[in-house]
Amino acid sequence: MARVPEPVAEVRRAVREVLGDAANVLSARSPEFAASPRANSPLIIACSGGADSLALAAAAVAVAPGEVHGVVVDHGLQDGSAAHSARVAGQLRGLGVTGAEVVAVEVGTAGGPEAAARAARYAALRAVSRTHGDAPVLLGHTLDDQAETVLLGLGRGSGARSLAGMAAWDPPWCRPLLGVRRATTRAACAALDLPVWDDPHNADPRYTRARLRHEVLPALEEALGGGVAPALARTAAQLADDDAALSALAGQRLDVLVDADGSLDAVALAAEPPAVRRRVLRSWLAAAGARELSDAHLRAVDNVVAQWRGQGVPPLPGELVVVRARGRLRVLEGPGDDPGVPARPAGPSPNR
Amino acid sequence: MARVPEPVAEVRRAVREVLGDAANVLSARSPEFAASPRANSPLIIACSGGADSLALAAAAVAVAPGEVHGVVVDHGLQDGSAAHSARVAGQLRGLGVTGAEVVAVEVGTAGGPEAAARAARYAALRAVSRTHGDAPVLLGHTLDDQAETVLLGLGRGSGARSLAGMAAWDPPWCRPLLGVRRATTRAACAALDLPVWDDPHNADPRYTRARLRHEVLPALEEALGGGVAPALARTAAQLADDDAALSALAGQRLDVLVDADGSLDAVALAAEPPAVRRRVLRSWLAAAGARELSDAHLRAVDNVVAQWRGQGVPPLPGELVVVRARGRLRVLEGPGDDPGVPARPAGPSPNR
Repeated sequence: MARVPEPVAEVRRAVREVLGDAANVLSARSPEFAASPRANSPLIIACSGGADSLALAAAAVAVAPGEVHGVVVDHGLQDGSAAHSARVAGQLRGLGVTGAEVVAVEVGTAGGPEAAARAARYAALRAVSRTHGDAPVLLGHTLDDQAETVLLGLGRGSGARSLAGMAAWDPPWCRPLLGVRRATTRAACAALDLPVWDDPHNADPRYTRARLRHEVLPALEEALGGGVAPALARTAAQLADDDAALSALAGQRLDVLVDADGSLDAVALAAEPPAVRRRVLRSWLAAAGARELSDAHLRAVDNVVAQWRGQGVPPLPGELVVVRARGRLRVLEGPGDDPGVPARPAGPSPNR
Repeated sequence: MARVPEPVAEVRRAVREVLGDAANVLSARSPEFAASPRANSPLIIACSGGADSLALAAAAVAVAPGEVHGVVVDHGLQDGSAAHSARVAGQLRGLGVTGAEVVAVEVGTAGGPEAAARAARYAALRAVSRTHGDAPVLLGHTLDDQAETVLLGLGRGSGARSLAGMAAWDPPWCRPLLGVRRATTRAACAALDLPVWDDPHNADPRYTRARLRHEVLPALEEALGGGVAPALARTAAQLADDDAALSALAGQRLDVLVDADGSLDAVALAAEPPAVRRRVLRSWLAAAGARELSDAHLRAVDNVVAQWRGQGVPPLPGELVVVRARGRLRVLEGPGDDPGVPARPAGPSPNR
């Protein structure tokens, strides 16, 4: 048997690690994965025709022959996208997938062109996963994509949650290549004689990610003397661990601090460290229906817990109002939701 | 009394918040600060003559008149630095400090020019603090400096610790301006008719921080649509909170898991979440004398805890060797420290 070129071997190892050798680790971390009827469901691979997902598809077929189902999402955003998608599906069949389908999606406008395309793509892939018994969907995101995602998160400024990047396993999504460089997937495709497609969006400076890739990351690399992308990926992994540990702790505290009526013990919560307190409040507010909480919202509620001097809290999105009385927080629905109820008091009384 | 211009008022508020109004918060957070004999010790202000530290000095004198002692560190790195330092000391006296001294330092070379100058400066300021009863030293770092520090930390890739930026209060260091923009300190100096000095190093592209300031941050601002510096500062504050909570938790676990002989219970530690486990290991290794642990070192030791299959650990810096036996980790000093002791076993036996 011919020797496997190193880039091809590296991509295969990454896939094998997620799917095979590390099955015990994976099942310990993700009971859903362990419980999923893999014997009856394929691996779904989402392929754009780019180097990352093509190299991933080739590796998946090598690691799990006879189990890989290919999907090409046609976003319909570029001339000839249908023909391109059909060509990629043909490439996948040539690699030996059990089937390859093209799914055409309608891209909306919400959140800008990148977010809208992503939303449409993920919805389509999730639907394919469902029709195959909730099969895992393998995505070709690399270490470089992860680094860009961390930089994107910097702009949000919401701490570990926004910097933790993409998860390697978040059912049904599975990202085996988060530790593999983009240059490696390209080298793997070259070694396999697979022609790759370069999405013109990836070089279009109107797209945030393209500018991060071609302008910001190189400037950061140059200023910091290299090694930035792997450093960002390491940071993402560590912050994801940090966030998981603190979120688990916050979940335990929340169970103890919430009453059957949904109110929260602000006095006991004030004794928790800020990192736990904020996560408890975020979960509690989310359970009460709060959406799109900004850092400023959360800080205002946290101040009512930890720096209580009788102050009120500005209404949260959705006209939710947080009030403190007798040492407990409650969420009331504002007048926008039920005009008959005078839900927003003139100001909470400063008794604790 | 004439109305105080807004930038001047903003800087004063920031100083007052750290020193005055928030004294109870501060003393709750920092018993050392509350216990420090502030009645007998001044506030020390470190001033370069730049806009940040000049605005800070002016605000400190306004907030705590008769208590502010100025220090100008002469790094001796630029022609005329002695005359410049004497001029800045004169400026400080003009602002009404109780005294202003110039401290000349010898800048070494360790770690590069920026790190060497910083080390010399901090050592000199610490010495001044000691001679004044461990008085707090006020530093003029702004929100923009904090943002640059976070970006510097990205290149290290060691998670929350490297992204948490500078602390507002880390005795004797006190940084009241971490929430104030650099443009505000400049506007405050203009409003007070204070001539400011622009350190040519701040624009010198040979310095990493200058490149972050003038090349990377603007590129990031442009790609992400603005608001990046405040977002980075918010992220730093949240990650500092996260790290504090997890470090406290790790400290509690460490107390329980270490025996009188210094060995660590690896079996119990394996049940902790990775974020806690890594911090326990870092503290335990530091207590055993390990220095400059890289992420790779820590991961190797962590694998011996959480993915034990009888493997060894490469020697840590300082020739420290970690071995696992009977479910406990021990640190042995390597042959470099004591050639008489065969400290590095051929390989730990895989009994837990």
